[in-house]
Amino acid sequence: MTNSSSERASEFELIAKVFAPLSAPGAYGLTDDAATIRVLDGAELVVTADLLSADVHFRAEDEPRLIAKKALRVNISDLGAKGAKPVGYLLSLALPRNWTMPWIESFAAGLREDQSELSVSLMGGDTTSTDGPLIVAITAFGTVPSGTMIRRNGAKPGDLVFVSGTIGDAGAGLTALKGELPNISARDREVLVGRYLLPQPRTGLGQALRGKVSAALDVSDGLLADLGHIAETSNVRILVSADRVPLSDAARKAGLRVPKAATAGDDYEIAFTAQASRRADILRAAADCGCPVTEIGRVEPGAGVALLDSSGREIPVSRKGYRHF
Amino acid sequence: MTNSSSERASEFELIAKVFAPLSAPGAYGLTDDAATIRVLDGAELVVTADLLSADVHFRAEDEPRLIAKKALRVNISDLGAKGAKPVGYLLSLALPRNWTMPWIESFAAGLREDQSELSVSLMGGDTTSTDGPLIVAITAFGTVPSGTMIRRNGAKPGDLVFVSGTIGDAGAGLTALKGELPNISARDREVLVGRYLLPQPRTGLGQALRGKVSAALDVSDGLLADLGHIAETSNVRILVSADRVPLSDAARKAGLRVPKAATAGDDYEIAFTAQASRRADILRAAADCGCPVTEIGRVEPGAGVALLDSSGREIPVSRKGYRHF
Repeated sequence: MTNSSSERASEFELIAKVFAPLSAPGAYGLTDDAATIRVLDGAELVVTADLLSADVHFRAEDEPRLIAKKALRVNISDLGAKGAKPVGYLLSLALPRNWTMPWIESFAAGLREDQSELSVSLMGGDTTSTDGPLIVAITAFGTVPSGTMIRRNGAKPGDLVFVSGTIGDAGAGLTALKGELPNISARDREVLVGRYLLPQPRTGLGQALRGKVSAALDVSDGLLADLGHIAETSNVRILVSADRVPLSDAARKAGLRVPKAATAGDDYEIAFTAQASRRADILRAAADCGCPVTEIGRVEPGAGVALLDSSGREIPVSRKGYRHF
Repeated sequence: MTNSSSERASEFELIAKVFAPLSAPGAYGLTDDAATIRVLDGAELVVTADLLSADVHFRAEDEPRLIAKKALRVNISDLGAKGAKPVGYLLSLALPRNWTMPWIESFAAGLREDQSELSVSLMGGDTTSTDGPLIVAITAFGTVPSGTMIRRNGAKPGDLVFVSGTIGDAGAGLTALKGELPNISARDREVLVGRYLLPQPRTGLGQALRGKVSAALDVSDGLLADLGHIAETSNVRILVSADRVPLSDAARKAGLRVPKAATAGDDYEIAFTAQASRRADILRAAADCGCPVTEIGRVEPGAGVALLDSSGREIPVSRKGYRHF
């Protein structure tokens, strides 16, 4: 970002010009202090918040359009994994003091594009300045029929374990961005980097899985770490067959191996467990929404998560996922 | 904050030990990716978000207990001014890398105390680290009977203008904290500084005003600036009689005058407009909830806001309130 006073606007002008056009009916054109959300009888609201910070969750030099999309998508991904239908979001921004209108306009353009794609609208938020790096804090809202949010705590011994899409692409994309994958093709690089910069929330799949699965979450910290969260809250042990973990062609060609893929973050796929009797039902639902789903393991009594080789031996994994501190 | 690795915990331990005990039933002990909120038939949810940054909204060296309370209270204040009954909140924290457990425990103690006082519970959020200053981003939820949220846009010519409590104390408190009010008594200093550090959200008054007033908001940017927001969204002109603006004894003794009080921020009182026929009704509701309310002006056709002296002449005010940039 460069600084030019002629390119600046006040907080109020910024809201009116850039953000108000993105707003939902209950947000009153962002001219009020709060928004209202009506929830249909028999439904309940699902709420989730994720805060992204420059140089932790994205690179400060990333295109603002992509920063906006990533921040929105990681929140919508949480709703998706919980089986919720996305409705809207609140956006709180702490802008470094050298922000410019072109930067903000690109950021807003990213939101506008994703609002159409994800069927959500801006409901409000806050805009302020900071002496530190850019912070994007989003709260996202969705709805489910009351009592049907897919929890983390329902996995039972005997359940099967599934994951959508492919694992490890985003991690490989970040490695490529750092210049550490010099020998991959331009096309593969684009695929992997795209997976890092632009997660695809599995909202259609999540809604289709409601009522069919015993536990779910989105893979953000890394497949094994996130399955570990299900194991912990469900009081079970989760076994993952390394040779079943789905890798993309691009990731394979980049030399990615399963232990690394299963501990990389930012996949934003849905990992879930379900009774074995639900297998056909789940694969049909996945096919109907055009979402690849792979069976990768099983649940047993115990605790923790283990990655197994083809002979059933545990593959040692030093670090199961990303931790912020 | 000082740094000691023995005083640190992982993100997951931090959530389990410090924040989970603060959580509401629909937050599932903070063990899931999202929380659920049920809204009674005939009600709707009111949502608002405010992000506070160290060195902008509070001083980094302020007691963490008070930082937490201020961040929560400024959000609950928005709900109060909209007539909503507070329900819960999401908390997203970007912690500087040198955070310590005692700091976080004090922060959580502040939240715990205020949760009892304000009748809200923690519903979720996010905890991450940042290379910049501490950021506290809160989204607060309340409920109103459907369609009754008090808006900014309903003021009409002929309406009266009111404000709760006293104006300018927080601004004077900040001045005192900066050492620029050396001659005030210890007691007055304590009163004024307390008003800066610990706003008192007027949630009881806000709910009592629902259905009786035409427009309302909480005074955060400064009385004149905030009444200017009502004037703008209602397409009216607001006239404030300087000699009616309520100042506290402590503020008067500190030498505060109305033009400065009416442009200082952080009051977190409710400013509102209502039909003249509602005056007795409003003063009774205010008395019932023990909230002082003062009639300070009137609404007429036109635009903008003006501060008038006792002979009806406009008092020039250079800057009507706080702007972040």
